[in-house]
Amino acid sequence: MGIIGSTIKPFSATAFQAGQDFFQVTDEDVKGKWAIFFFYPADFTFVCPTELEDLGEHYDQLQKLGVEVYGVSTDTHFSHKAWHDTSERIGKLKFPFLGDQLHTLSKNFDVLREEMGLADRATFVIDPDGVIQIVEQTCEGVGRNANELVRKIRAAQYVRENPGQVCPAAWEEGSETLAPSLDLVGKI
Amino acid sequence: MGIIGSTIKPFSATAFQAGQDFFQVTDEDVKGKWAIFFFYPADFTFVCPTELEDLGEHYDQLQKLGVEVYGVSTDTHFSHKAWHDTSERIGKLKFPFLGDQLHTLSKNFDVLREEMGLADRATFVIDPDGVIQIVEQTCEGVGRNANELVRKIRAAQYVRENPGQVCPAAWEEGSETLAPSLDLVGKI
Amino acid sequence: MGIIGSTIKPFSATAFQAGQDFFQVTDEDVKGKWAIFFFYPADFTFVCPTELEDLGEHYDQLQKLGVEVYGVSTDTHFSHKAWHDTSERIGKLKFPFLGDQLHTLSKNFDVLREEMGLADRATFVIDPDGVIQIVEQTCEGVGRNANELVRKIRAAQYVRENPGQVCPAAWEEGSETLAPSLDLVGKI
Amino acid sequence: MGIIGSTIKPFSATAFQAGQDFFQVTDEDVKGKWAIFFFYPADFTFVCPTELEDLGEHYDQLQKLGVEVYGVSTDTHFSHKAWHDTSERIGKLKFPFLGDQLHTLSKNFDVLREEMGLADRATFVIDPDGVIQIVEQTCEGVGRNANELVRKIRAAQYVRENPGQVCPAAWEEGSETLAPSLDLVGKI
Amino acid sequence: MGIIGSTIKPFSATAFQAGQDFFQVTDEDVKGKWAIFFFYPADFTFVCPTELEDLGEHYDQLQKLGVEVYGVSTDTHFSHKAWHDTSERIGKLKFPFLGDQLHTLSKNFDVLREEMGLADRATFVIDPDGVIQIVEQTCEGVGRNANELVRKIRAAQYVRENPGQVCPAAWEEGSETLAPSLDLVGKI
Amino acid sequence: MGIIGSTIKPFSATAFQAGQDFFQVTDEDVKGKWAIFFFYPADFTFVCPTELEDLGEHYDQLQKLGVEVYGVSTDTHFSHKAWHDTSERIGKLKFPFLGDQLHTLSKNFDVLREEMGLADRATFVIDPDGVIQIVEQTCEGVGRNANELVRKIRAAQYVRENPGQVCPAAWEEGSETLAPSLDLVGKI
Amino acid sequence: MGIIGSTIKPFSATAFQAGQDFFQVTDEDVKGKWAIFFFYPADFTFVCPTELEDLGEHYDQLQKLGVEVYGVSTDTHFSHKAWHDTSERIGKLKFPFLGDQLHTLSKNFDVLREEMGLADRATFVIDPDGVIQIVEQTCEGVGRNANELVRKIRAAQYVRENPGQVCPAAWEEGSETLAPSLDLVGKI
Amino acid sequence: MGIIGSTIKPFSATAFQAGQDFFQVTDEDVKGKWAIFFFYPADFTFVCPTELEDLGEHYDQLQKLGVEVYGVSTDTHFSHKAWHDTSERIGKLKFPFLGDQLHTLSKNFDVLREEMGLADRATFVIDPDGVIQIVEQTCEGVGRNANELVRKIRAAQYVRENPGQVCPAAWEEGSETLAPSLDLVGKI
Amino acid sequence: MGIIGSTIKPFSATAFQAGQDFFQVTDEDVKGKWAIFFFYPADFTFVCPTELEDLGEHYDQLQKLGVEVYGVSTDTHFSHKAWHDTSERIGKLKFPFLGDQLHTLSKNFDVLREEMGLADRATFVIDPDGVIQIVEQTCEGVGRNANELVRKIRAAQYVRENPGQVCPAAWEEGSETLAPSLDLVGKI
Amino acid sequence: MGIIGSTIKPFSATAFQAGQDFFQVTDEDVKGKWAIFFFYPADFTFVCPTELEDLGEHYDQLQKLGVEVYGVSTDTHFSHKAWHDTSERIGKLKFPFLGDQLHTLSKNFDVLREEMGLADRATFVIDPDGVIQIVEQTCEGVGRNANELVRKIRAAQYVRENPGQVCPAAWEEGSETLAPSLDLVGKI
Repeated sequence: MGIIGSTIKPFSATAFQAGQDFFQVTDEDVKGKWAIFFFYPADFTFVCPTELEDLGEHYDQLQKLGVEVYGVSTDTHFSHKAWHDTSERIGKLKFPFLGDQLHTLSKNFDVLREEMGLADRATFVIDPDGVIQIVEQTCEGVGRNANELVRKIRAAQYVRENPGQVCPAAWEEGSETLAPSLDLVGKI
Repeated sequence: MGIIGSTIKPFSATAFQAGQDFFQVTDEDVKGKWAIFFFYPADFTFVCPTELEDLGEHYDQLQKLGVEVYGVSTDTHFSHKAWHDTSERIGKLKFPFLGDQLHTLSKNFDVLREEMGLADRATFVIDPDGVIQIVEQTCEGVGRNANELVRKIRAAQYVRENPGQVCPAAWEEGSETLAPSLDLVGKI
Repeated sequence: MGIIGSTIKPFSATAFQAGQDFFQVTDEDVKGKWAIFFFYPADFTFVCPTELEDLGEHYDQLQKLGVEVYGVSTDTHFSHKAWHDTSERIGKLKFPFLGDQLHTLSKNFDVLREEMGLADRATFVIDPDGVIQIVEQTCEGVGRNANELVRKIRAAQYVRENPGQVCPAAWEEGSETLAPSLDLVGKI
Repeated sequence: MGIIGSTIKPFSATAFQAGQDFFQVTDEDVKGKWAIFFFYPADFTFVCPTELEDLGEHYDQLQKLGVEVYGVSTDTHFSHKAWHDTSERIGKLKFPFLGDQLHTLSKNFDVLREEMGLADRATFVIDPDGVIQIVEQTCEGVGRNANELVRKIRAAQYVRENPGQVCPAAWEEGSETLAPSLDLVGKI
Repeated sequence: MGIIGSTIKPFSATAFQAGQDFFQVTDEDVKGKWAIFFFYPADFTFVCPTELEDLGEHYDQLQKLGVEVYGVSTDTHFSHKAWHDTSERIGKLKFPFLGDQLHTLSKNFDVLREEMGLADRATFVIDPDGVIQIVEQTCEGVGRNANELVRKIRAAQYVRENPGQVCPAAWEEGSETLAPSLDLVGKI
Repeated sequence: MGIIGSTIKPFSATAFQAGQDFFQVTDEDVKGKWAIFFFYPADFTFVCPTELEDLGEHYDQLQKLGVEVYGVSTDTHFSHKAWHDTSERIGKLKFPFLGDQLHTLSKNFDVLREEMGLADRATFVIDPDGVIQIVEQTCEGVGRNANELVRKIRAAQYVRENPGQVCPAAWEEGSETLAPSLDLVGKI
Repeated sequence: MGIIGSTIKPFSATAFQAGQDFFQVTDEDVKGKWAIFFFYPADFTFVCPTELEDLGEHYDQLQKLGVEVYGVSTDTHFSHKAWHDTSERIGKLKFPFLGDQLHTLSKNFDVLREEMGLADRATFVIDPDGVIQIVEQTCEGVGRNANELVRKIRAAQYVRENPGQVCPAAWEEGSETLAPSLDLVGKI
Repeated sequence: MGIIGSTIKPFSATAFQAGQDFFQVTDEDVKGKWAIFFFYPADFTFVCPTELEDLGEHYDQLQKLGVEVYGVSTDTHFSHKAWHDTSERIGKLKFPFLGDQLHTLSKNFDVLREEMGLADRATFVIDPDGVIQIVEQTCEGVGRNANELVRKIRAAQYVRENPGQVCPAAWEEGSETLAPSLDLVGKI
Repeated sequence: MGIIGSTIKPFSATAFQAGQDFFQVTDEDVKGKWAIFFFYPADFTFVCPTELEDLGEHYDQLQKLGVEVYGVSTDTHFSHKAWHDTSERIGKLKFPFLGDQLHTLSKNFDVLREEMGLADRATFVIDPDGVIQIVEQTCEGVGRNANELVRKIRAAQYVRENPGQVCPAAWEEGSETLAPSLDLVGKI
Repeated sequence: MGIIGSTIKPFSATAFQAGQDFFQVTDEDVKGKWAIFFFYPADFTFVCPTELEDLGEHYDQLQKLGVEVYGVSTDTHFSHKAWHDTSERIGKLKFPFLGDQLHTLSKNFDVLREEMGLADRATFVIDPDGVIQIVEQTCEGVGRNANELVRKIRAAQYVRENPGQVCPAAWEEGSETLAPSLDLVGKI
């Protein structure tokens, strides 16, 4: 089965978040609101900070949309804290980071590069039922785009809240939507 | 292993393309240039035509970038032709459509909704070696965005052509890139 | 065991029928009256419309005999509707079509050409107990004959309603039948 | 895979034919010309003789079309001869009967009623390559129709001899045929 | 284990007996009296009628001894009746014939020539408990001898009715028997 | 497969024969002439000596017909010799006895009463090719009949030497035989 | 596990003992008193009678010690009786002989020469709990020694009756024994 | 198969022998002369020293007969040496002791008490071909007898050197032996 | 999983301790106080006594710390006693020795040199819950150091008794310890 | 088999060492000189820096003894560098650190706490043949002692260089050693 429409698998990870003591996060904690799992290869590396910064700049907006954000790499929570303490860009980020040194999350979402022990550059949007609704993955060296991610989350939230409506290509909030019906079959 | 970095699996499908007789396309035909596999659930339905039209409007630009586009659903090539003949929006599209009534492609890319016999809404960008470099998947009812797709293909092509360079988040053509090195570790 | 005398296997398919919204049909819905499953390779192709038209011309007669008719191919119900909307011959047909893009029915009746994902040209007559009583299959390119099909259904109904009677070769309604007995053994 | 298009499986059976000594028939002997395998439940019973007589009346015509006919039941060749010697209707038949007391043919064609040791009422038309092109099966008590069988054999022979042509529904020799092409897709 | 002393296995067969309608015979029906299962290769053949006639001439005597006789071949009950109707010798026989076209009895008694689908020439005597007491088998072409069979049945009945007595070689009714005892060990 | 027509299985046994030292007999030694394997339960018991004596009285006649005789029980060759030395009846016998304390022969011919370690009372006639042609088995307490055994051996030898001839029931040397042919089918 | 200390396995055998009718002996009958199982290859052979005679001369003494003796070979009880009747030495023996033509005992005690169907020359002493306490085995051609056997049985009985005492090498009744204790460790 | 007549299995053990450095002994070293494997439970215990002393007193005699002696327990060669150094009785022994702390020998000869890790009290005599000819085993607490062991070895050597002769029960060197022959069967 | 943190596996062994009778020790007896399992290759050898003596000199101190000591080799408890009786150094030792001739403990702690049947030179410290907290292993020929062992046991006891405190490298009793906290991450 | 004496398993890891670019280290690179693998749970944590600092202070001495040191945790080489850059204590260390985010080394040496994805606190000394000679493991919270480690490495080197010598307990360089011999068995 495709990953779209599947439910997230069980996990338990230790999180670091600025201004708090370490805490555990499980699949059950994630459910009940929207969530982004934002995988990147490793702390202290190159593209990752620009992507994390780009995402950090949209965090307030995402929080207003009811969306939590989790940064995930195969580093420990100790390493996440150390990076936060020593990097200016990372130090600004307010969302939690999960330590995946066990590789559980990377395997659950099928993004572990097994010969390296590092995760791919991959984003998953989870709805409040724990179901995966949006996936983005890019090769090493290609940064993601938080703007486009927010656009798609808005569309997915619109569809969830308006049963019987769908959002056409490149839809932006406020644009027209479609209501599928028998009469429209073969007519669009 | 994650799908990013994996090579496409063998397939053979009958294609419909406007102005030509039906023809076969295999995994070997795909290699040697960049390619987009653009999966959608079914001919004659709702979101699909707006996404296909959006993609069609970028087809000339993609052709200039050396990228071929394949529309794919579990319908036959007969059905693809009939849709092209009877829908104004679809009738304008110049790229080929593959008949996947055998479900081979939908299973190869792991996007078959097995209880329905239809594909998810999913995009895969393949490099000239047949390796998957970019993945996008969205839930039913959320249209994709061809502009963002083109942005990411440009970045992937830049990285392939400029070894030792990486593109930061939301990079657009002409923007600055980064050259990773030991000195940068922990410094970005 | 031969297929004659076997009971139809479970299935669930979405049906298109002119003048109605899409609806589900299952093996349980089929039971309780006589039914014809009329398989053909694909919508929008060549022999199929002539055979479907021939069968359509006998539909009123079959309805009077208490027989429902189901057209079946591996196309979706969307495709069936589109064909109905755009083909004059198909547009006249009043019986339902089942979307078998899942291949369940084609496999249940053992008529899937596995290397193509299309069904054979095959007819199955089911009695009100869900038991297969008559089978006809022909190679690609040879059309079936609705007149002969009706003749055989009448004979099967006659036998079901008149236990102890059998219909000789090429029997037509009103002709003489036979009553098997020990005395007739070796005497016909 | 469906039975249409499959090749007959190996067998060896002893045949009785009027005016000859017993002889062996194998799958290799069948190939090279068209053939009908005409299964029936048992010698000395009821519907069978009327069907066999009906078929016998078309034997000269079938011979002219290059078609051999084989009657098959699970009786021995001794029993076939005894029936021929003692029944007026059967005594007139000129085509060979195969003794299938081993059940090989009944199993090869999947028509053995396993709980009875008798074959179903089933007809298979084989082309000169040993490939099954037409199948007819009816429940106990419903006789077949040799006229319709001849019509379908003529159509199958026409299609084999005229590549690129197909015979529409209820086609009779001399009627119009169709030549499938891309232009006809969705136009019939 | 040897066949002597084993109990007959379950079966159900349709029987023909002169002057009656067809009826079922099972292993349970056989028990309660003595029985002979008299296997022969096929109806309408050569040695069989002489053996069956020889046995038929002892049928009254066997009936008086409380022994039922069953003729068995892999022919159907229809064929048995037809043979009875058309052969003078067979027509005189008053005991039942079992149709073993399912090969159940031939396999139960291990007398099926598997490459031919016919039974060996074999006789089994069953006591009222369903236990096999006497076996005779001969190759094709060698007829059995009903006189000797009756002699052995009388001896077996004598032994059953006179516990502690045994019948020496070639014993005839009325001859002397032996009573085994410790004293006789090594003394005969 | 039935035992009639099967070839004897490999064995090696030590034999005792009056007037000779012990010697080995194998399946290969048996071939090339006719042979009787005459199984009995145990040395020094009751019915066995009368049967062995009856057979011994026909030994000269059997030798003239080219038939060797082997007495077989699960006793050792030492025991066979001791019985011969101490029993008047057994002491007269000139044919060899095989020691089957290994149970090889009793299992090869499927006559071992497994819960007792003794053989059944069973006779097998083997032709010069090592093929079993005649079988007789009787329950404990019923003696065999050497006269009838000789009758059947004569018939089996006649059939072997006269291909195309068969011996009817209760045939005695010099009586009429039958020549099977197509014309006789259903006529006897 | 070694055989010493193991319990005898289930068996049932028919026994011959002078002056009695045949009777059954099982593993349960053996328990409750001491027993010797005295295996030898075959009745009527060479070393065996001298060993059996030697043992027989100690039988009264063994009976007084509460020890039963069982002679065992793969011969039948009939053969044992015949040997007793015809051999002077064997005729004097008063202990029972078991017929092991089933090989159960020979396999239970692991003394069957499988390629010959005969037992090894082996002695087992069983205590009243059915536990094996003493084993002696010798190759073909070497006779055992009943005196030594009696010596060891006395020692085993002494040990059983005097917990805490052990018998040193070559101990004879009345000689000194040892009482093991911590103080004796390393001191003898 | 019984242990008598079987060949010793491969092993390698470190040996201690008075007046020598430690050395390895394997199954190959054992072959070529007669050998005794003398198992006992443990160094420093109770019965063992009396048995070992008894055997030691026959060592010169055994050496003259060409027989090597090996003491075996699951102790190490270090322990064997320590026992020899500290025990007067053991210190006198001149034959080698094998360290079986690996349990290989105890398992090869099937004398390991698995729940204790100690060997049973067991003696095996091996001929120059490595074949086991004599076995003696006694329960805990019962000492063996070296005199009787020597008697049996003499008999086994006599039989090996004089083919066709056997030694009767309780045979002592110089006594009469037997030559088995057909004439003696049943006569001793 | 690493051995640190695992619970000891079940065992039962016979112990020798100076001044006591032999007694059993099991895994359950070990729990409830601290324990050292001190493995060494063999009694009566070279490095072992110096290590055992070194440990013996710390035994009073260890007893005060609530720690029991078990010497373990694959020798028997008889051998342990004999060594104690005959070696001055070993004779002074007051702690118990376990006989592991069954190899259970050596396998449980994964220190058996399987090709030799001897244990490695290895020390395991067990806490009162039966959990392994400290491991030391050295190659043949390198003696351990009881001082360092005591240092580590003190540290482990300190940590157990002071949750939230850890002992830095080379910590000695009375030195400073550390209390880990979020603030210290990356700061030491 | 115990870990002592086993050869290190294959691995490949990326190393960070102050003043160098990242480089690969494999099991082959390790061989040819002595090596320490020094496992610790995680970068940026508590006990680890004191242990690493303690080891660092002995690094020059170890280098002189020809011993390389590898720090190992499940962190990446990026994290190792970042720790070095930001911690004063760690920044002083001159030996290489291996990134074991793949868990290969932690599993090879059996020290992975599987439920945490972190390594135990464990030290392994490898000789120039890649064979493990010394192991030390302590529970969480108990620091190791570099002095004692150096002592044991000296002893292991001494033993390797002086075959036939062993180092007694708590041996320090220059102290007396032992030369094992037969004479010393049981004498120390």
